Amino acid sequence: MTNKEARLEEVRQFLPQWLEESRKEAASGEVASYIPELSKASHTALGIHLLDIQGDSASAGDCGMSFTLQSISKVFTLILALIDNGEDAVFERVGMEPTGDNFNSMLKLELVRPGIPFNPLINAGAITISSMIKGATPEEKSARILDFFRRLSGGSPLKVNEAVYRSEFETGNLNRSIAYFLVENGVLNGSVEEVLSIYFRHCSIEATCRDLARMALILAGDGTDPLSGENLIPRRYVQIAKTFMITCGMYNASGEFAIKAGLPAKSGVSGGILTFVPGALGIGVVGPALNAKGNSSAGVHLIERLSQRMDWSLF
Amino acid sequence: MTNKEARLEEVRQFLPQWLEESRKEAASGEVASYIPELSKASHTALGIHLLDIQGDSASAGDCGMSFTLQSISKVFTLILALIDNGEDAVFERVGMEPTGDNFNSMLKLELVRPGIPFNPLINAGAITISSMIKGATPEEKSARILDFFRRLSGGSPLKVNEAVYRSEFETGNLNRSIAYFLVENGVLNGSVEEVLSIYFRHCSIEATCRDLARMALILAGDGTDPLSGENLIPRRYVQIAKTFMITCGMYNASGEFAIKAGLPAKSGVSGGILTFVPGALGIGVVGPALNAKGNSSAGVHLIERLSQRMDWSLF
Amino acid sequence: MTNKEARLEEVRQFLPQWLEESRKEAASGEVASYIPELSKASHTALGIHLLDIQGDSASAGDCGMSFTLQSISKVFTLILALIDNGEDAVFERVGMEPTGDNFNSMLKLELVRPGIPFNPLINAGAITISSMIKGATPEEKSARILDFFRRLSGGSPLKVNEAVYRSEFETGNLNRSIAYFLVENGVLNGSVEEVLSIYFRHCSIEATCRDLARMALILAGDGTDPLSGENLIPRRYVQIAKTFMITCGMYNASGEFAIKAGLPAKSGVSGGILTFVPGALGIGVVGPALNAKGNSSAGVHLIERLSQRMDWSLF
Amino acid sequence: MTNKEARLEEVRQFLPQWLEESRKEAASGEVASYIPELSKASHTALGIHLLDIQGDSASAGDCGMSFTLQSISKVFTLILALIDNGEDAVFERVGMEPTGDNFNSMLKLELVRPGIPFNPLINAGAITISSMIKGATPEEKSARILDFFRRLSGGSPLKVNEAVYRSEFETGNLNRSIAYFLVENGVLNGSVEEVLSIYFRHCSIEATCRDLARMALILAGDGTDPLSGENLIPRRYVQIAKTFMITCGMYNASGEFAIKAGLPAKSGVSGGILTFVPGALGIGVVGPALNAKGNSSAGVHLIERLSQRMDWSLF
Repeated sequence: MTNKEARLEEVRQFLPQWLEESRKEAASGEVASYIPELSKASHTALGIHLLDIQGDSASAGDCGMSFTLQSISKVFTLILALIDNGEDAVFERVGMEPTGDNFNSMLKLELVRPGIPFNPLINAGAITISSMIKGATPEEKSARILDFFRRLSGGSPLKVNEAVYRSEFETGNLNRSIAYFLVENGVLNGSVEEVLSIYFRHCSIEATCRDLARMALILAGDGTDPLSGENLIPRRYVQIAKTFMITCGMYNASGEFAIKAGLPAKSGVSGGILTFVPGALGIGVVGPALNAKGNSSAGVHLIERLSQRMDWSLF
Repeated sequence: MTNKEARLEEVRQFLPQWLEESRKEAASGEVASYIPELSKASHTALGIHLLDIQGDSASAGDCGMSFTLQSISKVFTLILALIDNGEDAVFERVGMEPTGDNFNSMLKLELVRPGIPFNPLINAGAITISSMIKGATPEEKSARILDFFRRLSGGSPLKVNEAVYRSEFETGNLNRSIAYFLVENGVLNGSVEEVLSIYFRHCSIEATCRDLARMALILAGDGTDPLSGENLIPRRYVQIAKTFMITCGMYNASGEFAIKAGLPAKSGVSGGILTFVPGALGIGVVGPALNAKGNSSAGVHLIERLSQRMDWSLF
Repeated sequence: MTNKEARLEEVRQFLPQWLEESRKEAASGEVASYIPELSKASHTALGIHLLDIQGDSASAGDCGMSFTLQSISKVFTLILALIDNGEDAVFERVGMEPTGDNFNSMLKLELVRPGIPFNPLINAGAITISSMIKGATPEEKSARILDFFRRLSGGSPLKVNEAVYRSEFETGNLNRSIAYFLVENGVLNGSVEEVLSIYFRHCSIEATCRDLARMALILAGDGTDPLSGENLIPRRYVQIAKTFMITCGMYNASGEFAIKAGLPAKSGVSGGILTFVPGALGIGVVGPALNAKGNSSAGVHLIERLSQRMDWSLF
Repeated sequence: MTNKEARLEEVRQFLPQWLEESRKEAASGEVASYIPELSKASHTALGIHLLDIQGDSASAGDCGMSFTLQSISKVFTLILALIDNGEDAVFERVGMEPTGDNFNSMLKLELVRPGIPFNPLINAGAITISSMIKGATPEEKSARILDFFRRLSGGSPLKVNEAVYRSEFETGNLNRSIAYFLVENGVLNGSVEEVLSIYFRHCSIEATCRDLARMALILAGDGTDPLSGENLIPRRYVQIAKTFMITCGMYNASGEFAIKAGLPAKSGVSGGILTFVPGALGIGVVGPALNAKGNSSAGVHLIERLSQRMDWSLF
């Protein structure tokens, strides 16, 4: 892997300059404002952290800021649900297809039989996945998720931002609407409020770009931590998550990101993006100003340029 | 009105025979089965009661059976909301257009800005209307509705079927989904569960064909009870309700019913239909077996044939 | 009918003032601009002509201007198709329901089986109706339509505006798209271009408000010309047309117009509106500036106020 | 590449057995029947041909049968349009996103502004791409496409099946509808019939599994023919095509195929599938019985099992 190390050197050298070029893209974006906690984020912030399989890292910009995982968490709750239930049980309740619609659209739940969520990364699918995490109580389920996330991040003391959680829970009426539709369609069982508490909790886990890069590194290692050698996720489940990150990870801009960056990635409404170069690098990015599809304007720009310059596309 | 009296004579004479002809249509329908209380209704039952402005009546078939008003109640909660809030306030929150979609569809709430219900007779609209009834508590609002319905029915001791109410409330997840979507769209305020309790309660009020005919007679009298001379509803609100009954009263088969019967009408999932001949007659029908659009198969057939034979169409 | 005559007197007296009040509504509208011929129409023009069953008339504003019938023609091609084919044959190919969608929407053709047009007044339905007019050739069919329209207008020398026809034909790609979808769905047979030539021809027939009022008077007379006593349309077909004018005549603002005006009406993209008071009056209006739903801004306002002031609503 | 060679040995050994296992899947599928030429294909046929970068091959089953490329051709017309127009010009007219809808759906053309096709592999997109092929006349454009396909297949004398072409052209009314909608939306210019003649011609090019494998081998070689060393396609355009084959290649079952097989692939309604292992193998499969999503039932099964057994997934 001398080759990859050399390339991180190259990245490190140019990263501050490339980041500043991408930061300009923030101007055309909008910071999420549906809850006060998100709206406070800096419009022009942009940070990145890269971590390779030798443990070398590079970072630039506002990489010290922390933010909530939001939809990025859905990759890892999917993986935990796969570990807890197996592939067959999970795919009885969520499909494998991109929707072409907004992440919170309910159109296909009504129009396409049998009315299961098209994939586990849109809201309907992720809520369904939250309901499949094992645990005796909602609290235990949330604790298991947090514990899993901490282990994936190399022991980082991740925790739920309670203010964000409360705001999400209070304003989350569209997710409630989705959840009750899922109950009606026979996809979701049990208490909607309990499932949503689990869902909003894992969306409200706070992290930094470094944490994202660390978690992504496990995916880059096919489930085995390149730094410790420990296997944390069965390889097949990483393969499933990785594929969804390509086809559905960037909302209904996933196709474009696959063409332009060619990397598995997952974004969140806080402006975070987790991505990785299989076998080589974990990457965390944050840039709160979002484009029309809900992805970090500057963050997408930065990853696309990086991937193109370094020839990282899987395709 | 000697003329109309004469015609009720004619109806009375042929009614049993016409009813039996229409009863055959029940064979192609299905009794609603989403709650056990509804599924128990007789598949082949068909009853009718007609009441004219002199107080003369005619009836045939299973006119003694009682059933829950279900969506028929929505005509009268609309009227009460108009009385409570005025025309402008009501139409800030619900539109005036037929949807072309199923009564419980959410498509237009997502697709058509600003996301208010298209009309007050689809579920989304009727739930919104339920939230506009005046009263200090949900119980008081429900009590006011029940009281209003009793007065319209000439003092009939109408009451809520509590078993139906509980079943509706427990299984009403699609309505919960709609309600939370309405909260998200800024149409609905306050507690969803409270609004739904009001909504499900008025849907669960039990009545007979005679009660329906009596309530319809007030509409036939443009808001003034032809029997007592008392004005119960401002004429303009009857006009509004009557128009909606033409354009939206029979779900997404309203257009066909307008062409074939030409009468204002409202149906319910229990198989009831309330209709009237303006200035002349109130009519109540029940036939639990429903066609694909959710209207009583035999009931629709009977009213269409009656209207055609008696030349009752408004058009 | 002394009473009705008296009321036309009242209308005549106030009409100029009422028209000027409504003319202000044109400011918020837009003149259709998809073909040059329509875009030339005056933005602020507004004219009206009323004709009662005694032959008395009243008019005001720009009632001398001529304009193409556009969608107004669809009421009368429907009637001619009913005369040519009978009720059953027509309703095998078009439905009876309002759509809730734009007049040129294709959504329901794809989403709702069996994919026949929802009603004969939306574009898909009217194109289907055009294909059902009897005649050995497209020219003969067009000639029969024109002849029928002339007879309904009391012998007015109506003719096709050839420049409008050519522009419509050249730019009518959305209608071509609709027509081919109908062929695919098995609704339309034969040559699409021939059907569209018939369709665009009848849309391009030129008339004045006086012509509209005269044609409407036949509908007001249930198919019999009140002035000549001649029966031109079977009463049942007028009933069908009248009902569609209530439920679908004003595009997806038909419900609102029914609530506010309560009159059967049909509008066209040139700003024309044909409406009538059954048993009493035919009315023609033109005001080229259109509201967001495609109806004449000022024209709708004028008819609604007239109907409210004169208490003309059918409901 | 000794390693890959060894693995082709392994494939060769088990291929007949694996193919017979997959052939059973044909039972649940249906042969396309919208034109007589397709409906004649054997329901139980299944053939495969694999060709590696050394020129070694393996095949099994009905690999001698010829069939029309249908949608498989769209990968290569996209590439030719990219060569002819460049990346920017192509993506002004087609997007990069999976739709979640059927390949011939028009919903998003109406619902999602600006109404350009979501991607170049659905019908709307592929028709748009056909219109972008350079050439003075439709005949010249078709000739350039055929010539390009022949070169990619190593000089195979591919030709258009004229009977299929004529049938497609005659029955292609849904594609006509799509094309006129594209003209309306400003996406398509010029004559619809000419564009469709180009489109239907390349869909009607006849090939065998061997031809498919040979064409796929060029993609496996990133645009350079591994057998001749000749560069036939710029690497970036292969990258684009490859990405679309992952996200959109198997209609609205692409996501599932990516999870289960993890290979770039494109299917056609004739039952053909072209896929490849980057850097290693080109693969052609045919099995005319299609599943509900329009992909070869047995063909999908065979490729998924092969990829899983040989660990070929890109992810």
